Amino acid sequence: MKIEFSPIGFVRMDIERVPRHWTISDAEGTIVIDEQFREGLRDIQAGQRIVVLFYFHQSPCFTKDFLVQVPPQRAEHLGVFSICSPIRPNPLGMSVVEVLGVEGSIIRIKGLDMMDGTPVLDMKPYRERE
Amino acid sequence: MKIEFSPIGFVRMDIERVPRHWTISDAEGTIVIDEQFREGLRDIQAGQRIVVLFYFHQSPCFTKDFLVQVPPQRAEHLGVFSICSPIRPNPLGMSVVEVLGVEGSIIRIKGLDMMDGTPVLDMKPYRERE
Repeated sequence: MKIEFSPIGFVRMDIERVPRHWTISDAEGTIVIDEQFREGLRDIQAGQRIVVLFYFHQSPCFTKDFLVQVPPQRAEHLGVFSICSPIRPNPLGMSVVEVLGVEGSIIRIKGLDMMDGTPVLDMKPYRERE
Repeated sequence: MKIEFSPIGFVRMDIERVPRHWTISDAEGTIVIDEQFREGLRDIQAGQRIVVLFYFHQSPCFTKDFLVQVPPQRAEHLGVFSICSPIRPNPLGMSVVEVLGVEGSIIRIKGLDMMDGTPVLDMKPYRERE
């Protein structure tokens, strides 16, 4: 079973050293959304937090050698589904970022941990359990 | 640009009425992971919360008519990226569930809002900002 997606836009940021993880990032950048989806952005507002789902486009192919990995800054072997490594069976990334503003089809965001050029697949409102 | 994924497993649950959203769900079920990825589950433990990324496999094709939708239980039009509708440009779902236990390649979970048979694409540890 093959599932096919296409980017809805791309991350743009010009920071040389991308933060390791969104939970510790204050980096700013933009998501440039394809014009065809612009109307879908109309209720995204400054100050909100959103979930961004993206494609780790520079990850090497996943093999069984990556089922257990030693993440940077942790001296232990951990199963791939317990870490946020970009090398995963399906190289999907998820970050929660803060919206600084929306201008047309460009969203300015804070708290990035994606590389410049990262393909964005989806954006959702951030929710917690009620 | 086309991005291709394959399921790492499938959701199994036999509740007739699937809860509307994980934030209000106590439904229980399982994720049955493909045997080839079993070793990647070794550090998932009962009591943890995990992020599950999945494919809305029964969604109709997305067209521009779905850029703005009226979600159930909310009498307002909202842009698709501000709601959790299964009808999205890339039909990706994200739920945060509680792990009840792991037996072999089967994860028992609580807090589901996915239909039986939903293809699972990825699982990650749940994290909040530090």
